[in-house]
Amino acid sequence: MLIVQKYGGTSVGDVKRIRNVAKRVVDCFKSGNEVVVVVSAMAGQTDRLISLAHEISEDPDPREMDALLATGEQTSAALLAMAIKAMGYSATSLVAFQARILTDDAHGRARISEIDTKRIRKELKQGKIVIVAGFQGINHEGNITTLGRGGSDTTAVALAAALKADLCEIYTDVEGVFTADPRICPEAKKIDAISYDEMLELASLGAKVLQIRSVEFAQKYNVPIHVRSSFNHKEGTMVVEADAEMEKIVVRAVAHDKNQARITVRGVVDRPGIAAQIFEPLGQAGIVVDMIIQNTSEDGITDMTFTVPKVDFKKAMQLAKEAADKIGAKKVLGDEHIGKVSIVGVGMRSHSGVAAKMFQTLAQAGINILMISTSEIKISCVIDEKDVERAVKELHKAFIESE
Amino acid sequence: MLIVQKYGGTSVGDVKRIRNVAKRVVDCFKSGNEVVVVVSAMAGQTDRLISLAHEISEDPDPREMDALLATGEQTSAALLAMAIKAMGYSATSLVAFQARILTDDAHGRARISEIDTKRIRKELKQGKIVIVAGFQGINHEGNITTLGRGGSDTTAVALAAALKADLCEIYTDVEGVFTADPRICPEAKKIDAISYDEMLELASLGAKVLQIRSVEFAQKYNVPIHVRSSFNHKEGTMVVEADAEMEKIVVRAVAHDKNQARITVRGVVDRPGIAAQIFEPLGQAGIVVDMIIQNTSEDGITDMTFTVPKVDFKKAMQLAKEAADKIGAKKVLGDEHIGKVSIVGVGMRSHSGVAAKMFQTLAQAGINILMISTSEIKISCVIDEKDVERAVKELHKAFIESE
Repeated sequence: MLIVQKYGGTSVGDVKRIRNVAKRVVDCFKSGNEVVVVVSAMAGQTDRLISLAHEISEDPDPREMDALLATGEQTSAALLAMAIKAMGYSATSLVAFQARILTDDAHGRARISEIDTKRIRKELKQGKIVIVAGFQGINHEGNITTLGRGGSDTTAVALAAALKADLCEIYTDVEGVFTADPRICPEAKKIDAISYDEMLELASLGAKVLQIRSVEFAQKYNVPIHVRSSFNHKEGTMVVEADAEMEKIVVRAVAHDKNQARITVRGVVDRPGIAAQIFEPLGQAGIVVDMIIQNTSEDGITDMTFTVPKVDFKKAMQLAKEAADKIGAKKVLGDEHIGKVSIVGVGMRSHSGVAAKMFQTLAQAGINILMISTSEIKISCVIDEKDVERAVKELHKAFIESE
Repeated sequence: MLIVQKYGGTSVGDVKRIRNVAKRVVDCFKSGNEVVVVVSAMAGQTDRLISLAHEISEDPDPREMDALLATGEQTSAALLAMAIKAMGYSATSLVAFQARILTDDAHGRARISEIDTKRIRKELKQGKIVIVAGFQGINHEGNITTLGRGGSDTTAVALAAALKADLCEIYTDVEGVFTADPRICPEAKKIDAISYDEMLELASLGAKVLQIRSVEFAQKYNVPIHVRSSFNHKEGTMVVEADAEMEKIVVRAVAHDKNQARITVRGVVDRPGIAAQIFEPLGQAGIVVDMIIQNTSEDGITDMTFTVPKVDFKKAMQLAKEAADKIGAKKVLGDEHIGKVSIVGVGMRSHSGVAAKMFQTLAQAGINILMISTSEIKISCVIDEKDVERAVKELHKAFIESE
């Protein structure tokens, strides 16, 4: 088999852990596999480089920032290759220009456009274990780019797709994807298999186990992903195409997010273009608006409510107030003390009454729902921040433990 | 003018110093020059990476070592470019694969074979200050190589040659090349101009101000070098082709080296091939033998004395003893407590009696000469380690202060 393995920053966090990773890689190789390994920077290294850059300049140049940050993965890749060679196996480390990982020009959040696998295939053919520096690429001019936080996941999946690998293993510091956050819900269980669609929803809802873009890539090229721990040998979670068996489970997982805040613009005259006047300034400021709800208008006057990340709350309030003044809205209300709970499952497609059951569960627990948003395989409710943990437990009990 | 500037590790040792370098670079640019800057890794960084590698493996793989070490200069180049951009000037950092610095395959001590200056010229034409990561190159397979300690000097001079630059400025933590080490000889003066040949001798004799190879490059392509301090604005030392004016000075500088040890193989049968049997094992072990002296043989039996770096003394003694056993030599003597003093000057070519004056000066000071070696523009004497500092002062007085 051709296997792509990816090890995160904590898995290569120090010399001892790098040696441990080297052993795992060699074991996989000794079992008769061709192995390509993608590594992140050693834990903490990227943050150290970022703060160094901020000492130089408040607003460091993005091209130079990428050139700077790319050194983190180059370092861990070289050290891992050394460790493997020291064990007597043949290995080579490659950075982006050598692995030919081509991206667009968007420094700091580049997208992979193409991977020319010739060099990697040549090294594999010579019996080498190939270590690729994650997170980085080069654009058509040969400038170094980076793929954004968690970008090494995308490097791994994109390489697996380009190499037509049999499997992409993502090694991390958790044992897989869970039915809920085990720190909140002790009954949460590891999920054996989850569909790409479900994983995408969970990633969007704040689960940090995989970068969203890596899951999109995996789905597009049908790359099976195995998310597992680098600290033990337990089976983790397979992320794969949904099948009929999977759809039998209505709810795969309960997700929550406490890093949201809510803003309501009251007394908005309901005429075309109003929404744009509110949301364009937010978009320009780089603020990601999550849920948007517009009430049915009464006498041509309506309310507009939306959620933003808590860190952007102050800035968003200010922009919303400016927009409200311009469009003659009555007032702007803000609430930082909200949270979001969601249930996710491809089974919802073929099961009815799921939303009703969710609302009922929350109602029985005396939890008030402030906003609702749904997709084909997800229902999210915004609730009071103080109710979030209880909501997760109740939903987990109702939808997962009862199944 | 097109100027190549090189800043060493102490000159870019921290954020404040990087900002200071940025100011100097911008000043040079504002004076109407095209500026290419070569940087070393921040002081201490290379040593930190080396010790990290040694934690992974006692004998780290050379290819991976180069990939690892190259991150040091990539980091300082990106930070310097950021600092210049933060001042409102246009700049771009380039690593070896972008600057197209091609080398041979000798990892850890690669030689530059070619520089394709197209990219650098393009960036200069766009009005940018170009920052190049020193010390590194790529071989024909696109593997990262490094040029050895002090290699950034060579990067700078090679770039100056390839770009046909008007001047190569080497910024360092000393004010230039001195007539002797000022820490030993307070009367030592900064040299305004020195010839390539003299600089080569001084570099070979242990002066660390420029890497030998960079001087060879400068001489080959006739690149004028200005060695100066990055901490003040004083004129430093120009390294240029010798002219008639220069030859008027007999001795340009007094050099010394305490890092030598002496080994004597006694009672060697004087037949062809004997020298090879002693020195081949040393060469294979990577030990650089400096002086070699073979006495005139008496009854077909001779002695062989040579010097090696002090750090290699134990290993060299062991190899010499093995060789002595094989060739049936009587015994091997070693002495770690020696030093070398030298006088260097192109003027020696046209002045006679220089050697005699040197020997006399040492004799008058009661300093015993153990070994002598000469070249056209240099005379070196091996003496007792305890006499070295006194010898430097006496020779400086006799040859330089008296002129």
